[in-house]
Amino acid sequence: MIQTKIIPPRSGVAFILRKGQRLRVEDVQGEQVSDFVCFNLNDKAEYLSSGRTIDYADTIFLTTGHNFYSNRSNIMFRMEEDTVGRHDFLLTPCSEDTFRIIYGHEKPHRGCFGNLLAALEPYGIKGDQIPVCFNIFMHVDVDGRTGKINVLPPKSKAGDHVVIEAAMDLLVGMTACAAEKSNNFSFKPIGYQILE
Amino acid sequence: MIQTKIIPPRSGVAFILRKGQRLRVEDVQGEQVSDFVCFNLNDKAEYLSSGRTIDYADTIFLTTGHNFYSNRSNIMFRMEEDTVGRHDFLLTPCSEDTFRIIYGHEKPHRGCFGNLLAALEPYGIKGDQIPVCFNIFMHVDVDGRTGKINVLPPKSKAGDHVVIEAAMDLLVGMTACAAEKSNNFSFKPIGYQILE
Repeated sequence: MIQTKIIPPRSGVAFILRKGQRLRVEDVQGEQVSDFVCFNLNDKAEYLSSGRTIDYADTIFLTTGHNFYSNRSNIMFRMEEDTVGRHDFLLTPCSEDTFRIIYGHEKPHRGCFGNLLAALEPYGIKGDQIPVCFNIFMHVDVDGRTGKINVLPPKSKAGDHVVIEAAMDLLVGMTACAAEKSNNFSFKPIGYQILE
Repeated sequence: MIQTKIIPPRSGVAFILRKGQRLRVEDVQGEQVSDFVCFNLNDKAEYLSSGRTIDYADTIFLTTGHNFYSNRSNIMFRMEEDTVGRHDFLLTPCSEDTFRIIYGHEKPHRGCFGNLLAALEPYGIKGDQIPVCFNIFMHVDVDGRTGKINVLPPKSKAGDHVVIEAAMDLLVGMTACAAEKSNNFSFKPIGYQILE
């Protein structure tokens, strides 16, 4: 059996996902978000693009069957399974600035941004290269009339998961999200498995 | 009187907007979109961020009074006037790939992406640095329940405009949009003025 790796609460990891490999991301305890970003392993200026992906999918809610595109309009991965059906692709990772501006914290946590950067830096990624992430299990309510957004507790329960399949060799960054509102004010781990 | 500069249909420009200067963008004939992007003139790795801006404004529809943030969470500009009230901040500029993938064109136009790149390249900007744009006057319907998006004709009429005020020295790229659906299938110019 393939071992499930654990991302501890409020932390992040980076790893390589080869073309054709599948990644299973599991909400181990429920109501926990994972910020996900990826780069073309062989040319890291090519990155996951919310704008291209939403434009080609004709929806802001990506799920099973959708292709995820890079800024160069190449398919980076495809979502193969999704037991939740609600994720966010509008927002940047929480950061020191998020905690300062939105939460008013005086000694802010480095957030998913800082965790992604720490994990991705050894692979040559700089902070300015971290774009809008695909925020797995994040539940952002959008009012189509007013535009108003509202961060709600995730719809995911313990054991819920998504599976994506890489369409190119990817450098992946992923977190167990560090922002209170995103996770219903309780920080939990995220599990993942790389399947051949 | 300050002269109005004209961006001809399906083309783009780049220029410098100094801190404190105001930029007036006018839909000269009505129903025409302008893709807008900007960079910190003094450190061009800092760029306009849809994800930061939406997160801090709590809305996907930005208008008068909203601050627009960079990827580093600094305020780049503030919207001072808006006679339309509906713009898009979800999508990347139309490109050769957009015309190929969405429109099925065999000899695709270079789109706003190509026009922005041509205008910004002399300032040292590369294609991979062009992010999700603030698409002035673009009318993207969003269904908050299903997530489905639909590009509709702009709500702007001849003479409608927005005014923004720069909060730092900016390198600005701006187009008269080249995509059929965005402009109700008729390509028109965009006017702009730099006000002190």
